Amino acid sequence: MIDRIAALDQYVGLHVQESMQELARLCNQPSISSQGLGMRECATLVADLLRSRGIAAQVMGTGGYPVVFGEYGTGERTLLLYNHYDVQPPEPLDQWDSPPFAALQRDGKLFARGAEDDKGELISRLAAFDAVRAVYGDLPYRIKFLIEGEEEIGSPSLNDFIRTHKDRLSADACVWEGAITDDEGRFHMELGARGMVDVELRVRTMRDDVHSGLYSYLPNAAWRLIWALGTLKDQQERILIPGFYDDVRPPTTRQRELLAALSSQEEEEKTQHEITRFAGDLSGQALKEAVLLPTCTINGLWSGYQGEGSKAIVPASAGCKIDFRLVPEQDPQEVVRQLRAHLDAQGFQDIELLAHPGTRAGVVDPDDPFVQLALQAARAVYGKEPVVSPISGGSGPYDIVLEHLNLPILDVGVAHPGCLIHAPNEHIRIDNWLLGTRHMALIFARFSQVLTDV
Amino acid sequence: MIDRIAALDQYVGLHVQESMQELARLCNQPSISSQGLGMRECATLVADLLRSRGIAAQVMGTGGYPVVFGEYGTGERTLLLYNHYDVQPPEPLDQWDSPPFAALQRDGKLFARGAEDDKGELISRLAAFDAVRAVYGDLPYRIKFLIEGEEEIGSPSLNDFIRTHKDRLSADACVWEGAITDDEGRFHMELGARGMVDVELRVRTMRDDVHSGLYSYLPNAAWRLIWALGTLKDQQERILIPGFYDDVRPPTTRQRELLAALSSQEEEEKTQHEITRFAGDLSGQALKEAVLLPTCTINGLWSGYQGEGSKAIVPASAGCKIDFRLVPEQDPQEVVRQLRAHLDAQGFQDIELLAHPGTRAGVVDPDDPFVQLALQAARAVYGKEPVVSPISGGSGPYDIVLEHLNLPILDVGVAHPGCLIHAPNEHIRIDNWLLGTRHMALIFARFSQVLTDV
Repeated sequence: MIDRIAALDQYVGLHVQESMQELARLCNQPSISSQGLGMRECATLVADLLRSRGIAAQVMGTGGYPVVFGEYGTGERTLLLYNHYDVQPPEPLDQWDSPPFAALQRDGKLFARGAEDDKGELISRLAAFDAVRAVYGDLPYRIKFLIEGEEEIGSPSLNDFIRTHKDRLSADACVWEGAITDDEGRFHMELGARGMVDVELRVRTMRDDVHSGLYSYLPNAAWRLIWALGTLKDQQERILIPGFYDDVRPPTTRQRELLAALSSQEEEEKTQHEITRFAGDLSGQALKEAVLLPTCTINGLWSGYQGEGSKAIVPASAGCKIDFRLVPEQDPQEVVRQLRAHLDAQGFQDIELLAHPGTRAGVVDPDDPFVQLALQAARAVYGKEPVVSPISGGSGPYDIVLEHLNLPILDVGVAHPGCLIHAPNEHIRIDNWLLGTRHMALIFARFSQVLTDV
Repeated sequence: MIDRIAALDQYVGLHVQESMQELARLCNQPSISSQGLGMRECATLVADLLRSRGIAAQVMGTGGYPVVFGEYGTGERTLLLYNHYDVQPPEPLDQWDSPPFAALQRDGKLFARGAEDDKGELISRLAAFDAVRAVYGDLPYRIKFLIEGEEEIGSPSLNDFIRTHKDRLSADACVWEGAITDDEGRFHMELGARGMVDVELRVRTMRDDVHSGLYSYLPNAAWRLIWALGTLKDQQERILIPGFYDDVRPPTTRQRELLAALSSQEEEEKTQHEITRFAGDLSGQALKEAVLLPTCTINGLWSGYQGEGSKAIVPASAGCKIDFRLVPEQDPQEVVRQLRAHLDAQGFQDIELLAHPGTRAGVVDPDDPFVQLALQAARAVYGKEPVVSPISGGSGPYDIVLEHLNLPILDVGVAHPGCLIHAPNEHIRIDNWLLGTRHMALIFARFSQVLTDV
């Protein structure tokens, strides 16, 4: 067994440049779901990457962007891998040191939009798959790849897709995207993810922008939006929408203990992000427990003139994008209803509300044997005790997979603090990517083992 | 005298297409002071337009963009004409039906950025000058043209320029830019202008934008700006900055009477601007008196992601542009100090405040004989009783001219309601432009007369 683990490690290491070239090829194909850019081309490329290693791959239609589905191997048991080929928009472009869709290796890193989230993780799994096949030959179980194209826009088609193809997707366990290794080299496992719902608020107060001196008595859309937003959240980060916290449960004792066991990263984060305080002035255990609270985050905001110098207008329109992160029991559409009712009650019937369907939060049992397998593999690969968190602050369609497929889910990934996912200069550290790939290879190798054990 | 008035009218009418070609040439030269675009080229073009009709013109340096100064004629008395060759930025470009810097005649209108404000008025004065010279020959007084390039950015260099060239600019009366004819064909005269100061607020809460799920506990610049702005003005349009109203005087009886005599345009404006209410729900006399109150207007607002679809980030930076319109006695730099002190007192020391020097309000005596001359000329040209307002809602460097040159100022112009100055599809109605030009020609013709009378 030890020899085979060493052989896996060696295989991954010897082929790292081939993997980086494959990753560069995938990153150089834009696939911005929120802008509809390059989606079909990227799905085809992903299917080709699967087929090139003997995985039966198919680009399957959904109500939105296609899912790439892959199947390999035979056996009674099945391991399902979840990834997505869509990426966040690259804006603001002027803050990238190299073009977002021209992957660049520099200082042991690879820079590109999607380098980590989630193309870097997809290529890591394919590299782990190659290593396991080279060392073990065929494995006594099935592997299924579910690679969607709408994760960054809240997976609007995934629920229908999984429900429709429930039998084909059935599995015994699922490896999710998105795990991180911290600055001390410890693997982090998060036992679930918050839900999320995106909304956009828009207001138009009059037909056109007008001269701000001659028509200063006409209604200003920017002020109107600001007054409306001011009723949503106070400076202590308390969300003021009636009913919003009704379904929020206090942390369980187990969750509190898991969070308390996490080492504080406050000073490191203050340095890294160049901040003097956290939102709401949180610190200590309260800061750790913030992950178990829902949020109301403005992602973007606009009105009137934003160019150089000044422009003396009263703007006629204004808008903003907001995401709400949700905790278990919160229903995304109920949150949207509460927001609409709140705006109406505050006299903002004129503010238009556009909402996506959203996802619910989902959590996994820390004692599941599959979770324990991944933790053991992490101890072997990273050489340090993993850090276990009761939930991720991020979101994904966990709930859909949990509900329809009824299986344990865990995170494996190649992120590190400062990898800047969703931001300019997103990148992976190649050494860290290698560790994540070895971790995945070991999970592949041991998956049949744990199924026998339980 | 009647024959000569008819001859003036005829001359202007016969040469209207030449004037429109001259205006198109001037509009097609961009001159956006806030963006530094085409400024010197436009100053040169304006000087050429003056010289081509025998006016001694000079492009004179300032601390900023140059002033075009022109002189013509001899005599003891002098009439000073104030215009500006700079224009507002054309954005948003996608809302123009034709390109902003390619003047287009259509349906008896001319469309271009600057078609009215203020290139249309400058060309109108030159056309009136041509007519008067053709009909009267030389006039027994001097005419001076002061054409600046920084009106749309608050005339930061004009104070120094006028102080430096006080003797050269000396005059007995000044014709300002910017009068409007209403939908019933009545000339509007405004006896002064509000002051103005532009500020920009900027906040950066951390180094980079971050993932809104994983880092939802990092400080959000958009929220921070919204909370700060929420402390500046309430939904009743009351400005909450301590001390802001200290220097604001209630309207005088004369001002109240002038405003009361103005016919209500409420229903027309509601239709034109597609609104159901005015800012602060004002109506009647209170709406009319709003012009005698200072304002705090957001001109533009930005943070984070503004593109298509969603982007799950906590934005690191946010900003906005605000203009304050000021009434007599208010000092622009005192307002800036009050704003800074207020932000500090509210805990927003981290919000950066950038301010321009600003201008003070200026008012003119309604009983000045020069004002009366212009009103008589308006009765003759427009055939209706002019509308007299105690102050304009807009701003200009009135105060500088009043302080240094000590002369009466009045407005003459070619605007009409809906001419969309500062907005997409700015235009003049050519029939209205002709009336404004005839009005100016008659003022030229009668100026020596009124000086003899007084």
